[in-house]
Amino acid sequence: MRNIMTSIPAGVCSLSDYEHRAQQVLSESVWAYLSGAAMDGHTHRRNRQKLDDVLLQQRILCEGMGQGSCQQTLFGRTLALPLLIAPLAYQKLAHPMGELASVQAAAAQGVGFCLSTLASSTIEQVAEVSGQAERWFQLYCQPSREETLRLVRRAEAAGYSAIIVTADAPINGVRNAEQRAGFALPEGVSAVNLDALAKPQQGDSVFACWMGQAPDWQTLEWLRGQTDLPLLLKGVMHPDDAIRAIALGIDGLVVSNHGGRVLDSQPSTIEVLPRIRQAIGPNLPILLDSGIRRGSDIFKAIALGADAVLLGRPVFYALAVAGPLGIAHCLRILRDELEATMALCGCASITDIGRHTLFHND
Amino acid sequence: MRNIMTSIPAGVCSLSDYEHRAQQVLSESVWAYLSGAAMDGHTHRRNRQKLDDVLLQQRILCEGMGQGSCQQTLFGRTLALPLLIAPLAYQKLAHPMGELASVQAAAAQGVGFCLSTLASSTIEQVAEVSGQAERWFQLYCQPSREETLRLVRRAEAAGYSAIIVTADAPINGVRNAEQRAGFALPEGVSAVNLDALAKPQQGDSVFACWMGQAPDWQTLEWLRGQTDLPLLLKGVMHPDDAIRAIALGIDGLVVSNHGGRVLDSQPSTIEVLPRIRQAIGPNLPILLDSGIRRGSDIFKAIALGADAVLLGRPVFYALAVAGPLGIAHCLRILRDELEATMALCGCASITDIGRHTLFHND
Amino acid sequence: MRNIMTSIPAGVCSLSDYEHRAQQVLSESVWAYLSGAAMDGHTHRRNRQKLDDVLLQQRILCEGMGQGSCQQTLFGRTLALPLLIAPLAYQKLAHPMGELASVQAAAAQGVGFCLSTLASSTIEQVAEVSGQAERWFQLYCQPSREETLRLVRRAEAAGYSAIIVTADAPINGVRNAEQRAGFALPEGVSAVNLDALAKPQQGDSVFACWMGQAPDWQTLEWLRGQTDLPLLLKGVMHPDDAIRAIALGIDGLVVSNHGGRVLDSQPSTIEVLPRIRQAIGPNLPILLDSGIRRGSDIFKAIALGADAVLLGRPVFYALAVAGPLGIAHCLRILRDELEATMALCGCASITDIGRHTLFHND
Amino acid sequence: MRNIMTSIPAGVCSLSDYEHRAQQVLSESVWAYLSGAAMDGHTHRRNRQKLDDVLLQQRILCEGMGQGSCQQTLFGRTLALPLLIAPLAYQKLAHPMGELASVQAAAAQGVGFCLSTLASSTIEQVAEVSGQAERWFQLYCQPSREETLRLVRRAEAAGYSAIIVTADAPINGVRNAEQRAGFALPEGVSAVNLDALAKPQQGDSVFACWMGQAPDWQTLEWLRGQTDLPLLLKGVMHPDDAIRAIALGIDGLVVSNHGGRVLDSQPSTIEVLPRIRQAIGPNLPILLDSGIRRGSDIFKAIALGADAVLLGRPVFYALAVAGPLGIAHCLRILRDELEATMALCGCASITDIGRHTLFHND
Repeated sequence: MRNIMTSIPAGVCSLSDYEHRAQQVLSESVWAYLSGAAMDGHTHRRNRQKLDDVLLQQRILCEGMGQGSCQQTLFGRTLALPLLIAPLAYQKLAHPMGELASVQAAAAQGVGFCLSTLASSTIEQVAEVSGQAERWFQLYCQPSREETLRLVRRAEAAGYSAIIVTADAPINGVRNAEQRAGFALPEGVSAVNLDALAKPQQGDSVFACWMGQAPDWQTLEWLRGQTDLPLLLKGVMHPDDAIRAIALGIDGLVVSNHGGRVLDSQPSTIEVLPRIRQAIGPNLPILLDSGIRRGSDIFKAIALGADAVLLGRPVFYALAVAGPLGIAHCLRILRDELEATMALCGCASITDIGRHTLFHND
Repeated sequence: MRNIMTSIPAGVCSLSDYEHRAQQVLSESVWAYLSGAAMDGHTHRRNRQKLDDVLLQQRILCEGMGQGSCQQTLFGRTLALPLLIAPLAYQKLAHPMGELASVQAAAAQGVGFCLSTLASSTIEQVAEVSGQAERWFQLYCQPSREETLRLVRRAEAAGYSAIIVTADAPINGVRNAEQRAGFALPEGVSAVNLDALAKPQQGDSVFACWMGQAPDWQTLEWLRGQTDLPLLLKGVMHPDDAIRAIALGIDGLVVSNHGGRVLDSQPSTIEVLPRIRQAIGPNLPILLDSGIRRGSDIFKAIALGADAVLLGRPVFYALAVAGPLGIAHCLRILRDELEATMALCGCASITDIGRHTLFHND
Repeated sequence: MRNIMTSIPAGVCSLSDYEHRAQQVLSESVWAYLSGAAMDGHTHRRNRQKLDDVLLQQRILCEGMGQGSCQQTLFGRTLALPLLIAPLAYQKLAHPMGELASVQAAAAQGVGFCLSTLASSTIEQVAEVSGQAERWFQLYCQPSREETLRLVRRAEAAGYSAIIVTADAPINGVRNAEQRAGFALPEGVSAVNLDALAKPQQGDSVFACWMGQAPDWQTLEWLRGQTDLPLLLKGVMHPDDAIRAIALGIDGLVVSNHGGRVLDSQPSTIEVLPRIRQAIGPNLPILLDSGIRRGSDIFKAIALGADAVLLGRPVFYALAVAGPLGIAHCLRILRDELEATMALCGCASITDIGRHTLFHND
Repeated sequence: MRNIMTSIPAGVCSLSDYEHRAQQVLSESVWAYLSGAAMDGHTHRRNRQKLDDVLLQQRILCEGMGQGSCQQTLFGRTLALPLLIAPLAYQKLAHPMGELASVQAAAAQGVGFCLSTLASSTIEQVAEVSGQAERWFQLYCQPSREETLRLVRRAEAAGYSAIIVTADAPINGVRNAEQRAGFALPEGVSAVNLDALAKPQQGDSVFACWMGQAPDWQTLEWLRGQTDLPLLLKGVMHPDDAIRAIALGIDGLVVSNHGGRVLDSQPSTIEVLPRIRQAIGPNLPILLDSGIRRGSDIFKAIALGADAVLLGRPVFYALAVAGPLGIAHCLRILRDELEATMALCGCASITDIGRHTLFHND
């Protein structure tokens, strides 16, 4: 097993520094799994490209900035910055502490944490070490409703404060990079919260094997009736899906293309976000993921209609490079960058951020 | 002779993997011939670029996807996916089995197969081994109508079920890559269905040497009167040509720029497709080729007006790398990718695919 | 200490030649400091890209060009070309003569010179050797108004003819390149005009640490009342800020994004310039910096509404490569390039330059 | 002296092949001179890019193509294709035969030839060996009208059939590449038709040194009165300049940015061409240069309003690589490519080419 770093390497001052170093410390196949995307990676790259294309509007000499803050309140809980750690599967691939490391880093930095159904630590273990961290449980609906409900009940019992249902990955996506690298879960890393991973049904097509057991709108409606926790829907990329979800009583949406890992050739999330916000109006919380790498990206997502973002792969990279300390460092970097961006664009609070704080190129 | 692989190399999971490996196993001059394009390759690259630029619209939680299928019916025959193997010349350049390999792979995977006039196997040999494969005969009109008719009659006699007339290559195109590599057909590979290749007529210009004997609209009209088989016209890139062809009783069109091999600086086929569909209305079948490398490309072509696609160079690459098994593998990859794309965009059948399943960037 | 060149190396004929050579003669950390930009450098690159995108309109056979000149008058002083050396901090990093070299080069070439608050030479030393050079003093407002005023009074006493207040850098920006290189001021280079650099206030955020002591509009209003010198505001990127500055009696604006060193993801200055000019009308002087590398860039800035430009990093590069002679050479190169551009676009004077001397791409 | 090739190297089948090989056979400084462009080469690259961006409209099954031809008539003389060799200076830099080689190649291939004022062979020597070649004389107006007139009279006496006045290079342009390479004319290569090159006048600016002696509209008007030969104006990039030239009785225009060698940041000529054609109407001949490398480029220029093109640097490259034979080969390649393009776009003659033979991207 590779040597686990316990301090932050010199010269690491941005999330991209963690990414570069992660590639060096991880095995080729784990790297392919983590960094890889669907098919040719067009959507993965587009997620970044379109964030880079959003331009900021600097303002000068603004009054009252000394009292500024980037805190954000979500479902009644205040976060130090509008960010949660995304529900990443199998975090022990990056570090023996796995999810226990990331939830502790989240607690230390005052951000939220989403635990994946495919976590390599149990729902209860994570709850135990999570301190004050806002904890959500990410749910992959299982082939049987019984099994799905069991997961929800465990999350409720362990004090998770919201359920986030992922709908954009009924199948795995065509992940050529990890196929080429021959990735398989190593000994000791598994989905410990499930009795077993879902298996394909009999059949000769993607439809027959997988889609027959995939959740649909009826599943969501049923689930809404099973819990009083806030229920968020993750993977919303079409305004009509957003509207339908709200009609079912969903409490929040996550605009996500799964980091470009499921369906290649999709638009970036930052392109889709304004359409979703416009479709549902100003009230319901929207989160965004896929491509956030800078505090200024958070600023841009807020300006275009999000309430917060989820941070995915960089958590893995930081975990691999410097354990829980690395993740905490990443979160602090993002907060500093977000605050600097806000200060330079004349925003003393998250609610000051909007379309008018972007530069419009026409 | 190089060693013929009889199994699929490890790590090969996309058509691009076959392409990279084909470059390693083929001689430089055969590679230049197969992979090359006209002049500077702008159109060849644009074929891919513009397919990549088409964006997909993901949908979630769709009902009834378990019964989905990507089957498509064309001229009364059902294909496992909307795809035929393109009429590639001289397939023995890639593998001693040549066309016999590809037709068998097509049969195994339930797709169609087009035999080129310039095949290195005879019309009859291919028919013999083709099993249930939907077989079409691609016709290059010969300088004499008599010779042209002889080819048609042989195809009819051998049970080919459609004739596909190529109109976009009255001359060879300016293929600098193969000129630089000094490509020439090796011993044992030739156009065995012709007595001889057409020779230039006397003259000092492209016009005098080649265009005097090239087919024109009168040729097509004559040909239409000679056979009751469905007759398709390949190489249609202008709406007026599409309309004129239909007026002559043509049964289907192939939007093609010959993989960028004939006239460089043309638009991509995916750009032209919607104009052709709009010009001729919804009924007549349109096929598209030039650049298909992913199941999602098939989805995009269908969404923009095609009924099916032709698969060209990748067949050659797979044949070179792993023989008939390689081609069958490619076809299965494409089907899996197409089904995954359909499932993720909420399409349970080919007829569900349309403009609304694309993301429109404005 | 590295060897100081006293002549211009062979083959150096453009500002980019100085840049390439400067990277060779400077230490890695000083290079990172000088050449670096905020975060990922998008704005830094965009400054150049958008200047390159502006197209010139050539004219031929124009009459009366023999009497042409690129002189420009600013606040009653005539410059040999519409250019001042930007207020670069710590010029002794590049050369032991530091600011004394650049002011002498400015004098020799008839351009203006701005002395930075963070200069490594004193206000008075620079004044002493500056000859006929038009000298301005760049002011970073200090945490205490007393200290700020002391700087203004010293500049007035030493004969500086304008004050240029920088408003776009209340914080340092996220400069990863210099952080990675571990840049720190070496022994012997410091901000000699200040008792001490401003220190962060107590607090846990960018807002608390830095923004409480940053200048605001009230600071500017106060400052306006303290001096009769022309007062310019640097870092204006929003039309409303321009208008507000003028309402306070500011005499000129500098459209600047600080060379992309403070807030990444901003637009380029050349994109913003026309909006600022349109907002304030034709009269008040506007300067532009960030990306000027060619005489044709000066032409483009003038055509889009500027009265003059500031030249930043290239001064440093030339100073590092060939001392004061190098800077003078750069200034002469820019003048020759500007004159050539004017001559070829049919402009015999700066006032002939305008929108009509650009090619409009639509 | 390097070995002069007397045959065409294997694998050379396009103008770009000559370019690559020329770089190998020429000295670095001559290569820098020939291939170099003004400043950063933006316009040089844009000339190619914008030609590449023009898309062709293929047509199929066209009738009557066997009698096609790409001949073009210009000022009553028929050319085998609509092309003249551009007035390139100092062709002996590429080959000891210099201009004598290129005029003979032009004669052999039936294209026109323009002799530069800065030729390294005399007006009379070229006339002597030129056979049936259409010969034009390119005139740089000299500081004295007497000297200018002497050149015109020599050209008339030697049977040149048109005068082409270059107006876009009153100064040399900022040619950094050749400055860096230290280019100077070698022994034995000089402007043999001039007593001496024009020298700068006294002064400290581009204006004073060069523009006082540059030709203006009065010079052109005077020149028009001095000769009955067709008079063409080269370097027209603004519609108003085109209109003014016609008002003075000019017989034809050359849209040119001097191959990007004089003023960088200009638009490409293919962008400007349609505006010039629209400004002056359909009758007066327009030629275009700067970037022609393929027969399809000639087709595009004709489609957008040109009557013919000039071929510049490639002549030099071919001359360097394979002497007069190389140039003849290039000309034949272009003709074959043009004919192939015409045949595939359904144009049997130059007059069939127009806007409708391009694909419009919107």
